[in-house]
Amino acid sequence: MAFSVNLLTQETYKIPSVLDDSMAIEEFLSRHKGKKVIVVQGLGFVGAVMALVCANALNEEYAVIGVDLANKNSYWKIRSINDGIFPLSADDPKITEFFEKTKVKGNFLATYDPIVFSHADVVIVDINLDVQKNSGQNFALQDFDVDLTGFKAAIRSIGRNCRDDVLVLVETTVPPGTCEKVVKPILEDQLGLRGLGTSKYHLGHSYERVMPGPEYIDSIREFPRVYSGCNENSADAIEFFLRTIIDTSVCSLTRLQHTNATEMAKVLENSYRAMNIAFAVEWSRFAEEAGVDLYSIINAIRERKTHANLMFPGVGVGGYCLTKDPLLASWARKSFFDSPSDLSMSVNSVSINDQMPLYAFRRLNEVFGDLKGKNITILGISYRGDVGDTRFSPVHVLVNLIREQTDRIQLHDSFVSYWEEQDCMIESDLFKILDLSTDLVIISAGHSEYRTKATLEKLMTMKHMFIYDTIGFFSPSELKKLSSKHKVSVLGSGNIN
Amino acid sequence: MAFSVNLLTQETYKIPSVLDDSMAIEEFLSRHKGKKVIVVQGLGFVGAVMALVCANALNEEYAVIGVDLANKNSYWKIRSINDGIFPLSADDPKITEFFEKTKVKGNFLATYDPIVFSHADVVIVDINLDVQKNSGQNFALQDFDVDLTGFKAAIRSIGRNCRDDVLVLVETTVPPGTCEKVVKPILEDQLGLRGLGTSKYHLGHSYERVMPGPEYIDSIREFPRVYSGCNENSADAIEFFLRTIIDTSVCSLTRLQHTNATEMAKVLENSYRAMNIAFAVEWSRFAEEAGVDLYSIINAIRERKTHANLMFPGVGVGGYCLTKDPLLASWARKSFFDSPSDLSMSVNSVSINDQMPLYAFRRLNEVFGDLKGKNITILGISYRGDVGDTRFSPVHVLVNLIREQTDRIQLHDSFVSYWEEQDCMIESDLFKILDLSTDLVIISAGHSEYRTKATLEKLMTMKHMFIYDTIGFFSPSELKKLSSKHKVSVLGSGNIN
Repeated sequence: MAFSVNLLTQETYKIPSVLDDSMAIEEFLSRHKGKKVIVVQGLGFVGAVMALVCANALNEEYAVIGVDLANKNSYWKIRSINDGIFPLSADDPKITEFFEKTKVKGNFLATYDPIVFSHADVVIVDINLDVQKNSGQNFALQDFDVDLTGFKAAIRSIGRNCRDDVLVLVETTVPPGTCEKVVKPILEDQLGLRGLGTSKYHLGHSYERVMPGPEYIDSIREFPRVYSGCNENSADAIEFFLRTIIDTSVCSLTRLQHTNATEMAKVLENSYRAMNIAFAVEWSRFAEEAGVDLYSIINAIRERKTHANLMFPGVGVGGYCLTKDPLLASWARKSFFDSPSDLSMSVNSVSINDQMPLYAFRRLNEVFGDLKGKNITILGISYRGDVGDTRFSPVHVLVNLIREQTDRIQLHDSFVSYWEEQDCMIESDLFKILDLSTDLVIISAGHSEYRTKATLEKLMTMKHMFIYDTIGFFSPSELKKLSSKHKVSVLGSGNIN
Repeated sequence: MAFSVNLLTQETYKIPSVLDDSMAIEEFLSRHKGKKVIVVQGLGFVGAVMALVCANALNEEYAVIGVDLANKNSYWKIRSINDGIFPLSADDPKITEFFEKTKVKGNFLATYDPIVFSHADVVIVDINLDVQKNSGQNFALQDFDVDLTGFKAAIRSIGRNCRDDVLVLVETTVPPGTCEKVVKPILEDQLGLRGLGTSKYHLGHSYERVMPGPEYIDSIREFPRVYSGCNENSADAIEFFLRTIIDTSVCSLTRLQHTNATEMAKVLENSYRAMNIAFAVEWSRFAEEAGVDLYSIINAIRERKTHANLMFPGVGVGGYCLTKDPLLASWARKSFFDSPSDLSMSVNSVSINDQMPLYAFRRLNEVFGDLKGKNITILGISYRGDVGDTRFSPVHVLVNLIREQTDRIQLHDSFVSYWEEQDCMIESDLFKILDLSTDLVIISAGHSEYRTKATLEKLMTMKHMFIYDTIGFFSPSELKKLSSKHKVSVLGSGNIN
């Protein structure tokens, strides 16, 4: 018997052994006759919120059904939605507002039953597509692979059930070439096997740029969009649909000529960010060697408009995208287009970025010494400031490394109560965790809370200790104040105050 | 007997065998008693224009003397300035305006005699510092070296002559660490050898961001500046001086805490640009393989503010900075700071960029075929649009490669009359060069002239030919028009129209 635990409520659900949800689906649809039906495949950080956006479309009333797998990691999300608890904790008040509206309208159902695709006017594919990395010594990337098995099965599940005039919109970040070389053949094969024609369905790709955080909803509704179709009709159909959910009065909608192009755009733009971080990382080490502060250098350079997007180094790169998207591209170039060449700049970036937490740890040993017997307080486990998202957080790696020298670790993050990757609860009361026994405070996520007046004052009342700022969090004036009492070291700066 | 030829007028000057210019200097200074004397060392693309800016300072009347070596490459510049012909052709009208003003005021002299340093209140170092690259097969960078001999000699020449209270401002792009580890010791040694103290001189670094082109002067006077001193007094002195020549009401002046920091800032910011181009280059090849157009992809991504500075690929990277600055940094990291690590992202960028013209050539062979017996017209030899600057222009490499298959080449550039690197004259009349025998037109510099209505109409009257746009110069609508008559291929785009 299989179970799935709700990560927000800790409630345990039994996964049904017979996977038939058709009655609930029929009941839901009977209440929404005449409405177009949108099925969102995948109820993760993108799909769940995309479903909310569709259920609160700008100028159309949709019946929205989210679908995910009935397994340990996903079944609880289905139950949670149907029980009235949104399966993500986010500090965007619009998430709650939008979810409450769907309850009033009753236009958002979740299910595990693929039969749901047979009712869809639009299917939005928001499932994950992971990269399997093989990391060598010191976390350096040695090789990697992309396993399309799960993705193909998901598309096949659509093709086995969908109508012959369905619109399939792929939002998943895929290796460029996937819509043309994987999705289209699978859909057409499955339609053919059911004796259906392949002239009426529409297929296209439009990538999301979802940013978990206080503007979660707006990062879908009010953010520039790029889209394409596998042919002109499909592109028109996608454009028509997107205009019902995206506020094109405040953001652009750009059509590219081929699904290869939009798929490439997505991984290119994330590779660009990953590379800019890797670049800063290399220079931050040089800055440390030369005894200068990279943050002030970058701030000075940013005065030039052409260089305003220079990024800072830090403890590492986390999140679901930047850690893998360059690899998806490189894989596609070789696997789909038989290229003998690599995207060396992009792939090298991932390798450099993956080594950041190790470097931060080694630098800590250099400036602070061995951690044995020391009491360590870690502020922030999320990979981004003011967000509770620990997916691929570099702090996870850093904490593992620290644990090799000491187990006297206190962890704080008021955005995360349970840390899935480390399987432990997280303290949310900052003032409880900052106590007089602390030898070392590590700033590892840029939560605003850590620079409030109250926090800075609390830090000044503590006994002399070491503060290790791994993300260039404190301003020069804050550093000056803190270093009047404590020893402070900033990763990427050769100065130790 | 040695000669030096004026590259603008072709006049030949005999280089004097006795290098004594003290009478001219004394005469000049006697006319400017009471004024501060600025000596600009190096009369190249930066120094010559910097001297003009100083001679037309915002709120101070300086007597300005430019100094360069009495050799084949530089002596003519000295003579040209003193003969009333500015040694650079630039399309910034302010260059002429400023130079004419110095003639009226008589406050700008050029000389080769290092005795001039003995009169300087301020010495500005604007000499070149080159990297010696060892390129392997296919132009890939194999190794490189930085020879400081000439640079050290130049600094020694200052130290042998300068007053003990001189202000030395290094503007040359140098390996980070140079002011501290090279300039300072040499100056202090030389002052000491002359029995002078080392407590009164000032030394600092502030890098220029000169951009040859229509805003040449403003790129010095109205552009954000970063500076530092070897100590607090020096930084104050440099700031005071910079405020007399730079319009800080329209641009920022940022002090960094160490000369290492400003030196690093300069090479970092150029490495950033070099890397962003190398990044685009790799993706442009992927775009060609996948049959999509990278320019439209990048334009779509640029809608995001965080990605607005994504760069386009092209035929290559030219100019004096981006082709070497990442290497200066890498060299310094190893040579001055004994680092075991490399700046791999930055160094790899130079290698990738150096290979761009070869790639453009190979792609041309792919899309057009062998060039044997074909008549080829090359539009633009400069490394930048609307500028006559051929330093390290990638078109030089491209032309060499083309010459291996055909010698039927016509070259056009209305900004360059004589092409030093190829030792040939350049046609400036576009309509003369576009004739009916042309089989292939290559767009290799983004001069506005190539997209005027008249030019596009002229191209449409020519016989069917092939147009190879190596820089994504034409807009989609221009491409559409041209491809109605000609075959058009854009480097970085898989579409051939």
